[in-house]
Amino acid sequence: MIDCQNILDKTYQKVRAMENMGAVASYIPELAKVDPAQFGVCLITKTGEKFMAGDSDIKFSIQSIAKVLSLSLVLSKLGDKLWQRMDFEASGSAFNSLVQLETENGIPRNPLINSGAIVICDVLISELANPKEEFLKFLSSITGYEVNFDPTIAASEKEEGYRNFALTNYLKSFGNIDNDVEIVLDFYFSLCSIKLSCAELSNLFLYLANDGVHPKSKKQVISKSNTRRINAIMSTCGFYDEAGEFAYRVGLPGKSGVGGGILAIHPGKYAIAIYSPRLNPKGNSYRGMKFLERFTSKTESSIF
Amino acid sequence: MIDCQNILDKTYQKVRAMENMGAVASYIPELAKVDPAQFGVCLITKTGEKFMAGDSDIKFSIQSIAKVLSLSLVLSKLGDKLWQRMDFEASGSAFNSLVQLETENGIPRNPLINSGAIVICDVLISELANPKEEFLKFLSSITGYEVNFDPTIAASEKEEGYRNFALTNYLKSFGNIDNDVEIVLDFYFSLCSIKLSCAELSNLFLYLANDGVHPKSKKQVISKSNTRRINAIMSTCGFYDEAGEFAYRVGLPGKSGVGGGILAIHPGKYAIAIYSPRLNPKGNSYRGMKFLERFTSKTESSIF
Amino acid sequence: MIDCQNILDKTYQKVRAMENMGAVASYIPELAKVDPAQFGVCLITKTGEKFMAGDSDIKFSIQSIAKVLSLSLVLSKLGDKLWQRMDFEASGSAFNSLVQLETENGIPRNPLINSGAIVICDVLISELANPKEEFLKFLSSITGYEVNFDPTIAASEKEEGYRNFALTNYLKSFGNIDNDVEIVLDFYFSLCSIKLSCAELSNLFLYLANDGVHPKSKKQVISKSNTRRINAIMSTCGFYDEAGEFAYRVGLPGKSGVGGGILAIHPGKYAIAIYSPRLNPKGNSYRGMKFLERFTSKTESSIF
Amino acid sequence: MIDCQNILDKTYQKVRAMENMGAVASYIPELAKVDPAQFGVCLITKTGEKFMAGDSDIKFSIQSIAKVLSLSLVLSKLGDKLWQRMDFEASGSAFNSLVQLETENGIPRNPLINSGAIVICDVLISELANPKEEFLKFLSSITGYEVNFDPTIAASEKEEGYRNFALTNYLKSFGNIDNDVEIVLDFYFSLCSIKLSCAELSNLFLYLANDGVHPKSKKQVISKSNTRRINAIMSTCGFYDEAGEFAYRVGLPGKSGVGGGILAIHPGKYAIAIYSPRLNPKGNSYRGMKFLERFTSKTESSIF
Repeated sequence: MIDCQNILDKTYQKVRAMENMGAVASYIPELAKVDPAQFGVCLITKTGEKFMAGDSDIKFSIQSIAKVLSLSLVLSKLGDKLWQRMDFEASGSAFNSLVQLETENGIPRNPLINSGAIVICDVLISELANPKEEFLKFLSSITGYEVNFDPTIAASEKEEGYRNFALTNYLKSFGNIDNDVEIVLDFYFSLCSIKLSCAELSNLFLYLANDGVHPKSKKQVISKSNTRRINAIMSTCGFYDEAGEFAYRVGLPGKSGVGGGILAIHPGKYAIAIYSPRLNPKGNSYRGMKFLERFTSKTESSIF
Repeated sequence: MIDCQNILDKTYQKVRAMENMGAVASYIPELAKVDPAQFGVCLITKTGEKFMAGDSDIKFSIQSIAKVLSLSLVLSKLGDKLWQRMDFEASGSAFNSLVQLETENGIPRNPLINSGAIVICDVLISELANPKEEFLKFLSSITGYEVNFDPTIAASEKEEGYRNFALTNYLKSFGNIDNDVEIVLDFYFSLCSIKLSCAELSNLFLYLANDGVHPKSKKQVISKSNTRRINAIMSTCGFYDEAGEFAYRVGLPGKSGVGGGILAIHPGKYAIAIYSPRLNPKGNSYRGMKFLERFTSKTESSIF
Repeated sequence: MIDCQNILDKTYQKVRAMENMGAVASYIPELAKVDPAQFGVCLITKTGEKFMAGDSDIKFSIQSIAKVLSLSLVLSKLGDKLWQRMDFEASGSAFNSLVQLETENGIPRNPLINSGAIVICDVLISELANPKEEFLKFLSSITGYEVNFDPTIAASEKEEGYRNFALTNYLKSFGNIDNDVEIVLDFYFSLCSIKLSCAELSNLFLYLANDGVHPKSKKQVISKSNTRRINAIMSTCGFYDEAGEFAYRVGLPGKSGVGGGILAIHPGKYAIAIYSPRLNPKGNSYRGMKFLERFTSKTESSIF
Repeated sequence: MIDCQNILDKTYQKVRAMENMGAVASYIPELAKVDPAQFGVCLITKTGEKFMAGDSDIKFSIQSIAKVLSLSLVLSKLGDKLWQRMDFEASGSAFNSLVQLETENGIPRNPLINSGAIVICDVLISELANPKEEFLKFLSSITGYEVNFDPTIAASEKEEGYRNFALTNYLKSFGNIDNDVEIVLDFYFSLCSIKLSCAELSNLFLYLANDGVHPKSKKQVISKSNTRRINAIMSTCGFYDEAGEFAYRVGLPGKSGVGGGILAIHPGKYAIAIYSPRLNPKGNSYRGMKFLERFTSKTESSIF
């Protein structure tokens, strides 16, 4: 990409100079402790070029971005059978809404909303002998280095995770959870607790920019068709009720986390990760959204 | 595109050989009269190559596909001000739902749902001296030939259009309609009544595959950035509560109409139109969906 | 009733001395013109005793209180067949909500919510040769004197009645309106426009306190069992989403109107009407609610 | 009451002769074991007359009828402060709906819906040193004999009580539960597990027919005004989304339980309990509803 580092630097400086608005997620006590001024970016192309700015090596809790990883793992194991237990439509609602589950009999709208991600955890627990270990092994096999859960963050989430307990019990009342609620949520909170830097995150997700094959490890993480499907699902469902906003302003498939991270994919080209913990009212990184809007506009990266 | 005609023919034959399921739209009496066996396809690339199969020259009522045209016109006139009167998020609901309007105080979720398209009609009536004439002139300026409303279909829709009268009165009760309900809906029903063939439809929409410029007439229909935004909106909202399904299976921005038409765009490459009047339970052309899923898979056309 | 005039006077003075809060209904221009300080009460027992205070002879628009009259007429004509077209459950929603109609396929929750009252108008138009005349004759046959519509108010309501046009078109889209929307709403707005004083209103409704027979005219307006049913319906549905509040604080079946009137029935004992045009946030007369709470508590009038 | 035993017997025989429709509640395993043919009635007047038919001495699980007892206890302890944590409006929804909690920020619609009753359990746990013991003592002080929880039923409910766990966690996520979810639900399931016969149940509730004073023990269980309020709340909220039906057909305040019991009050006159475990589609005793409709019609017992 011509001039990529230059555009990335200028955009970074511009957004850094703007007022840093929004609030750090406070409902998870451990997340509330991060420094709100942190701001990092890393873009890696499928050919291995790497462009960075700011705090690109500071680790942060990836939170809901992990939902794309568990979706990848479960699709590689289960294939289309997954869709008997959830849909892949936009929800038009907040990430933790219970309303649609009531009218739709416990079938989550999509795998990137909390209810869908929790059902995926349930599936993985049923499918895998040692779900936590095998999940981490799955990640290591992609990146080539070790990835770990953060037990402090996981414990902190569990402590205040009443709504997720509500969701999971509700799903179970409809028969869409097979395992114990406690076990399912223990796995779910562990997934959310993974900490990665922008550099690590963009590297990890390169398989989605390369037809399912990680360009360094050459590992076929998922099939080409499932790669497209995951990118499609991120495009329609990756930002909850701001998915249309992200498609409109940024124009790339992506996924955000309340830890302040955003991961976006330019299919066939690159993966980019941004981290800045202050969130806009919809729960997506304030600076992350600003950065990506400007950056994709300057680089004409939109898939549309 | 290498071998495009061959893949198109084979896919056409394969889908034609499958059982033609679903029902022709019956709530508009005039639409119910079409021959359910009609089935046509036309793809035109931005470089002017044209590939056709079946009834590609039979005209049909484009219905909601017209919403993309009125959105294009209004964005070229009004720009971002439009978004004060509607949003661009997926609705997660049926095309004519009133529920979200109640909770969201008369702000339509997006411009491709009925309520949003009706507000756009209201805007155009306020902005244009002769809305109907200027709209047709806008279309002719793109295609180079005359396009007309079909008064019989428009009248037929009005006759049974109670839900659209409900929507429009409801929008007006929230203050989001400035003009008379009758006048707004007369314009809206006229737009929906336009009849075009697959060949005409794919030609008309080529500007969305070419950064806003129609490749034949060289007319800059809309700006490059608005082109991307319209494609983004089609991608998240073009198929009502089957938008995720379309992204997942087809992977292109697109828009369907209850007349049995589907229009899809491969940005930077081509526009394709399919027509087959039997609809699946979500109101989208049964054969159109089957055809596009197979065709984009074979040609690896997904934007994801 | 021992000491009734005394309690009525004292309660009236007490409530009059309190700050007169809330706003006069403004969405109907004609209603917005009334003097907000007006305040009247009249109670008539089934044995003919009459107790009054304040502006008990000032006429006001009875608005939704008329829904009980049209329900009485339609039940006397149609009996239980009415319940094929609506239910008699509390709505738990505002008086003009469209949401439940969507999930319940155009079946109004009860006859005292706008949608239900509109369906009743439709039924009466189908059943009666001259609905307006026969409705007024029905009222006169109860009271012995002439009752009239107020065309200025009816016209004023029609002018801004977009939500009722929305509701009626919506009902028609579900097939639950047989006649023309314009004709149905013309009748509906006429019913709402009737002007009566507290003295007239409490006299008119005495049949609901006397097993269906008006004690003066001896006319059997409706059967004994339908009298109980109408009182039951008022008790659960007469105050929209404040029905529980009214049952809890007042403890009588009753019905309010946005004109500022409230009518309540003590079955077997009396009818009482209060008028004061300032409304609380739920759309019920602010002083009317305060008065009735105190009055029924002092007289121990609750049916519970 | 003249001829009461005669009407009660005849009505009992008539309903017994009808087909016994509906299904025994199966979601609580222990409840599914009861004999579906059981059918008993007991009416006790405030003056001490007692009329019975059928299995009036067979004990059954009173389930949600216990919500009226916990409401009585909490109102006697807390008074109007309770209404800071819940409302007293009809819900218009099923007994275990989560939807309204989402739109109303965790404030239950009324104390007789599951969410409201669970909040009351939370209040009682905070207010009482030994909630279970003191609750049973409260009941014994009314009846004069011992009342007990049924640990087998309570355990059975807990085992499948995912939706109640969902509700309670959801309420806690809104800050409307102070104590541990497990402790709150343990108390809640215990309350629901109480077993009483129709004879015991009608005797226990006589205070609601006598201005709050139990006529035998002379104990003032609650104040006169709270008695009226509880009867009012039963009248608008006692039968979930069949409350209107019960008011329309029966015309008395009442409360049902999924164990097949119904308790109804004729204020100032009597308490009546019916037991028959087959439930209609709304979850209320099929024979209980049939019996009460006929009985109150014959005895002209409606409060309306």
